[in-house]
Amino acid sequence: MNPIIVVVVGTTDISLIPGITIAGASPELTHYTPAADVEYLLTGRPKSIPGIPVTPDGIPTPAVVTRALTRNMPKLVAFAGGRVRPKVPYIDLGGEPGGDFRKGPALSETAVENILENGRILGRELAKAGDVFIGESIPGGTTTAMAILVALGYDAWGKTSSAGPDNPKDLKTAVVKEGLARAGRLDDPIKALAELGDPVHVGVAAIALGVLDAGGAPVLAGGTQMLAAAAIIKALGGDLGKVTVATTGWIADDRSADFFGLAKAVGVANIKVTRASFSSSRFPGLRYYDRGYVKEGVAMGGALYLASLRGLPVLEMVEQEYERLVGS
Amino acid sequence: MNPIIVVVVGTTDISLIPGITIAGASPELTHYTPAADVEYLLTGRPKSIPGIPVTPDGIPTPAVVTRALTRNMPKLVAFAGGRVRPKVPYIDLGGEPGGDFRKGPALSETAVENILENGRILGRELAKAGDVFIGESIPGGTTTAMAILVALGYDAWGKTSSAGPDNPKDLKTAVVKEGLARAGRLDDPIKALAELGDPVHVGVAAIALGVLDAGGAPVLAGGTQMLAAAAIIKALGGDLGKVTVATTGWIADDRSADFFGLAKAVGVANIKVTRASFSSSRFPGLRYYDRGYVKEGVAMGGALYLASLRGLPVLEMVEQEYERLVGS
Repeated sequence: MNPIIVVVVGTTDISLIPGITIAGASPELTHYTPAADVEYLLTGRPKSIPGIPVTPDGIPTPAVVTRALTRNMPKLVAFAGGRVRPKVPYIDLGGEPGGDFRKGPALSETAVENILENGRILGRELAKAGDVFIGESIPGGTTTAMAILVALGYDAWGKTSSAGPDNPKDLKTAVVKEGLARAGRLDDPIKALAELGDPVHVGVAAIALGVLDAGGAPVLAGGTQMLAAAAIIKALGGDLGKVTVATTGWIADDRSADFFGLAKAVGVANIKVTRASFSSSRFPGLRYYDRGYVKEGVAMGGALYLASLRGLPVLEMVEQEYERLVGS
Repeated sequence: MNPIIVVVVGTTDISLIPGITIAGASPELTHYTPAADVEYLLTGRPKSIPGIPVTPDGIPTPAVVTRALTRNMPKLVAFAGGRVRPKVPYIDLGGEPGGDFRKGPALSETAVENILENGRILGRELAKAGDVFIGESIPGGTTTAMAILVALGYDAWGKTSSAGPDNPKDLKTAVVKEGLARAGRLDDPIKALAELGDPVHVGVAAIALGVLDAGGAPVLAGGTQMLAAAAIIKALGGDLGKVTVATTGWIADDRSADFFGLAKAVGVANIKVTRASFSSSRFPGLRYYDRGYVKEGVAMGGALYLASLRGLPVLEMVEQEYERLVGS
């Protein structure tokens, strides 16, 4: 494996709904999480907010794990559309921030088409550089993933995961239902994505489609959100036989969601689950990972998979990075 | 060699001065040349203008050569700042369009610092992906290159090349002198670049500095402009012993300029000159390359160098690509 990692970032206003996500210290701060995640991932320190993104309880972003394990691997940022632009160099996919789909379309169809076209061009180039791993950071993403899957015809009700141990499934289901009722008839995938999607899932799928165009085999590094991306790839004619989803044991074991059931329904057969445990960590923030917090994000599943292939001492490396952060 | 090619694009209003550049069918159209160059380079067709960039006489952009020879190599676009944004995915370096330095500073110092910081972060990542080749597209660039070299203390008067057989050296010298007189005292490199530079040369140098940071050895793919970039690298503390400039025989043989004299003055010792001849081409547009037109740009020197390492049939591949263009 000669990996090249691209993290697709952006925002959806769905993340502002109180209680729907813990990917940020407050609903308003969730809009800063994607930018801060990739700023930290590339440079070791966030710029858009003072510290790395944390949950309201202070549990650190999975970007800590990804950074710790992929320091010597090339990482690029793709900006699919968001309210806060990262303060590191990013590839602009020409999208726009995702709106609250209860109130109106999440995206214009033009934005969806721009992201698809630009992401695809990018994917074709990245495929020539190595094995493309695609990660994401978008708070509220498990809700929009549910919406995308439902809009594309899958029974995904209550089956996507969450970044906390208490998956707010009733709230997420109600939000998606409200969006679906507003959107009305969804004639084709572009309209479905514009009405009920978000920029990031479209961007992930677009880059993967470009990798497929070039004869590559993209790895979607993430949890149930990556199954929504896979559903987009399939809806747009991509061959899922060449797509792998690499995720964490925390996602695979999440009884509040149904990763494997969704994967089967969508048609994702190539799945890599990497089991790591932080339960013996000396840092409480990391021990929470084994108690159902965080689970995925910022390509963590891909980073753990690559680390397992290389036989790296995962917990030691993650603790070293976390210690640097806590000490600084 | 496991190349990854990044083309840095942007504009300077110096290109609007009548007679100073032929990198576009008219002075106004020169602002579209960088965007169209990379749109074509990545996708095979320009988007911002109807056809590929040409000189007022219809001689095609060197992007034709680069595209023909690097189809299977990863290529990325870095946007350092320009009046026309490319309609393909690009890495935003957070700069701004370059102004006419006769009338005021070319760039704000903040823009210079943004480009340097972002380019450096990007270079560090790209260095992990392969051997980084850095090209450029900025009409008017040989004039701003002269200005940058002079501002950094070199005698570059009349020594930079041009895209035509009749290098308008008197005009370029007068323009740079006017800029110097306006700018006054240049205390440090950042101020020199802000007063008399352009976004692209700063971007090229910044990416190269990032590659050096990561222990890599960047290849600057271009002509006398790359010596201006090398001068920036040196002024900012980079080790030119690890930097290579790969250029064309057309630049090396340009008696209207002094590539080797400038290289020596700046301290660039690693030089690769690839001699190609299009004089036997069946296409007049390409035959003009052997008559002193074009000479360099859009990483052509790097593409020819890589083609020579691989023993590729250069003219045959370039004609095939050009035929596709002319036929379409």
